[in-house]
Amino acid sequence: MQTSENRPQMLDRLQRTLHDKKISTIIVFEGLETAGIGKQINRLIQALDPRGYRVYDMSTPSSEEKQHPPLWRFWNRIPPKGQIAFFDHSWYHRAFFNMDPAHPKYAEEIEHISDFESTLSADGYIIIKIFLDISYKEQKKRIMKLRKNPALSWKVGNRHTKQLQKHERYMLSIRQVITHTDHPYAPWTIVDTHRQKKATMVIMDVIIDTLQKALEGSLPTPSPVLPDALPKMQIDNFEPDLSLSLSKPDYREALKAMRKKMSAMQNTLYRKKISMVVLYEGWDAAGKGGNIKRLTRSLDPRGYQVIPIGAPNDEEHQHHYLWRFWRRLPKDGHIAIFDRSWYGRLLVERVEGFADEVAWKRSFHEIRQFEEALIKHGVILVKFWLSIDQDTQLRRFEARQQDPDKQWKITPEDWRNRAKWGAYKVALDDVFRYTNTPRAPWHILESNCKRYARIKAMEVIEAAYRSRMSNPPNMTKARTLMGG
Amino acid sequence: MQTSENRPQMLDRLQRTLHDKKISTIIVFEGLETAGIGKQINRLIQALDPRGYRVYDMSTPSSEEKQHPPLWRFWNRIPPKGQIAFFDHSWYHRAFFNMDPAHPKYAEEIEHISDFESTLSADGYIIIKIFLDISYKEQKKRIMKLRKNPALSWKVGNRHTKQLQKHERYMLSIRQVITHTDHPYAPWTIVDTHRQKKATMVIMDVIIDTLQKALEGSLPTPSPVLPDALPKMQIDNFEPDLSLSLSKPDYREALKAMRKKMSAMQNTLYRKKISMVVLYEGWDAAGKGGNIKRLTRSLDPRGYQVIPIGAPNDEEHQHHYLWRFWRRLPKDGHIAIFDRSWYGRLLVERVEGFADEVAWKRSFHEIRQFEEALIKHGVILVKFWLSIDQDTQLRRFEARQQDPDKQWKITPEDWRNRAKWGAYKVALDDVFRYTNTPRAPWHILESNCKRYARIKAMEVIEAAYRSRMSNPPNMTKARTLMGG
Repeated sequence: MQTSENRPQMLDRLQRTLHDKKISTIIVFEGLETAGIGKQINRLIQALDPRGYRVYDMSTPSSEEKQHPPLWRFWNRIPPKGQIAFFDHSWYHRAFFNMDPAHPKYAEEIEHISDFESTLSADGYIIIKIFLDISYKEQKKRIMKLRKNPALSWKVGNRHTKQLQKHERYMLSIRQVITHTDHPYAPWTIVDTHRQKKATMVIMDVIIDTLQKALEGSLPTPSPVLPDALPKMQIDNFEPDLSLSLSKPDYREALKAMRKKMSAMQNTLYRKKISMVVLYEGWDAAGKGGNIKRLTRSLDPRGYQVIPIGAPNDEEHQHHYLWRFWRRLPKDGHIAIFDRSWYGRLLVERVEGFADEVAWKRSFHEIRQFEEALIKHGVILVKFWLSIDQDTQLRRFEARQQDPDKQWKITPEDWRNRAKWGAYKVALDDVFRYTNTPRAPWHILESNCKRYARIKAMEVIEAAYRSRMSNPPNMTKARTLMGG
Repeated sequence: MQTSENRPQMLDRLQRTLHDKKISTIIVFEGLETAGIGKQINRLIQALDPRGYRVYDMSTPSSEEKQHPPLWRFWNRIPPKGQIAFFDHSWYHRAFFNMDPAHPKYAEEIEHISDFESTLSADGYIIIKIFLDISYKEQKKRIMKLRKNPALSWKVGNRHTKQLQKHERYMLSIRQVITHTDHPYAPWTIVDTHRQKKATMVIMDVIIDTLQKALEGSLPTPSPVLPDALPKMQIDNFEPDLSLSLSKPDYREALKAMRKKMSAMQNTLYRKKISMVVLYEGWDAAGKGGNIKRLTRSLDPRGYQVIPIGAPNDEEHQHHYLWRFWRRLPKDGHIAIFDRSWYGRLLVERVEGFADEVAWKRSFHEIRQFEEALIKHGVILVKFWLSIDQDTQLRRFEARQQDPDKQWKITPEDWRNRAKWGAYKVALDDVFRYTNTPRAPWHILESNCKRYARIKAMEVIEAAYRSRMSNPPNMTKARTLMGG
């Protein structure tokens, strides 16, 4: 420790070290209006290399952001490895200002926030949360001063007035939320901002101290939620009857009827602003591509998107594993079809050793939370596993190899995967065991007969849609209630 | 050529070949309501691998998109190398529907569109433009049919009614725009859609034909606009007087005054929704970082962003060179400060041979167009070159090497660049000669004395701001007039 350095120099040095060690930092600023968030962030970034940070003004969600689950705009902005993100207002807004602690959804909201932070922290992100405190008297004084200044009075808006009126009530709520979210891995610091320069020093000290601890490895991290801690699901019903099939004439007739239903469904979803996520997983050559094509043929391309998931690219590697899925979530009223999905973590990445054991074991819980966040937002989630037997796979591999138009579809990797059928089966059983939750169940598509699987896929989607329409999640109501 | 293939098979094969050859394709669909754009795109994509295309519904700009130059939302979505982008409605909307051909800005709009297309085409993008034609009678019939269907009548909106009312006028305007933008490198195809299945075949044939020509290398490309074709600017005034300096006390006083002005300026820009782009270029060790810091210290971080430009990353390499700058443009009311900029193309990329000669030579013109697009949107653009002499650079390099806190700032690359001073000077003279336009002039910051340069930077910014406020570009008015 070089004690001769001043605070900005220390911050500058720490930023470089964190960058080299690829450690990401999230610094949250919260506070009432006129507490000076802008000023404090600006003083901090003066010490930093602009290549290494981004500042996000999160006070008001855009119209597009409102059409996604509430955490979407924050997941989108988590910093890549080695970088710092400053959040000027954050995921606390709703709990602070739009929710009475007596509200029945309050506990759920706190849990939601805490899960988000613990997921990031477990992945190595440093989280620093700063609340800039200001008394009623001081806030009133500052607002009056702004009002009197003709060049600045436009800054005073409804929020200011409301906060002055409800100062006490807001502060009560905020203090409670802070207490409930003051986790060792994401602690709060309350900073008195009556004297702004002193506040800057306090803030810098907190940040320097946290970053140094992170570099020493002495920062607390949440204990990972391993699969053993999760309720196990029955998976008896996951032994598919692969003899199920459909004749060509029956298929044609069923397809015609289903296409009309899919088209009508899309129209209704669009009008009612309900989004849908369909994910396809399955054995190689089980027929995912063809199944997706039959589904999309009757849909309007303006309202759906097929999202093929392969190995993560450079940018995706620089973020938490779930980042790339959060980013691609459909906006309200739209349909996203994932051709392979976040379950890659628990299948290919586990089997091939691309993810280390703690990382993939954590993912069962993280994926459940992720899916739960979608469902709470009102998304219809449908998860498909396309099942075939090994003989059928072999026959299809060989047929591809003999067809000059399909040779490109079959690679040495497919053969290597096939050789690991057993290891994938073990991983798959765990996927079913721990992620086949009542609200986000798996559906097996028996795909030895592709026709059968295609019709069943649409039937399952139709059923999920009907069930959602006749039985909206009570969260939708809560969302409206809280939505500020 | 395998004539035994059907159309979807040909498309499938062509897509794979284009992907392997890293050729990007832009397919634009335009047409009146009910012409069937959605249906036609959906039929096309059934033949394609979803990993290789994206469909964009561009009919209505979002609130964020409206706060950027009109082409911003299209630049953001140009496909990466080897990929296809389908645009359902496009950059033609304004010319088609919001602009009388007799409008004084009409010619400008056509030029703007044509420049965009020729820039992409010159960079290797294939551009296919399809107009789905429909008669008044047929449109009326389809709208009536929609209206009568209780499940679909919600789809009929103001646009439909308006288009029926003004069918003739719109079609006159559209036909004229199509004639004026039917370039060999980005030709239009008008497709009769009264019989939708036949239309699909025609569309597929056009696309197959164009893609095949592109692969054979027989697709016309625009002739590059080389610097010699551009008006040369006087550059006598670019020999800086590097003896200019400012004493510490004078600096402190000037700084104090300028900081107030910068802060007030930011407030006004924010309120009036005018954005500003400041770019910094200059010799290594000329003091860009320190200059930017002094400028930003008095700004609110919610309203500005420092954007450091280094070597392009993987994703950036997959797009046209200007893509990464378009993406980072500030929204209305915000300030973007580029620490290095798009001029890297004409400096480091030229000198180091990272860009081939035709590519960087084309860039003079492309950059002028890019800057003109900003100015037309009302952006205040300020371009700085930080000038120092070689002795000063040497002294600063040596000082950095001796300071343990600054050693990281100096790398062998800096020394290599220094050895190429002469080559950079030649490139720089060309930059001034061809891009010092009256509306986007360069400003030299004499930076042997850093204090002098810092104050001058803010003075230049202040002057640019004053000039913009007292003399708004007439484009702002036109924008409102046309803005649909």
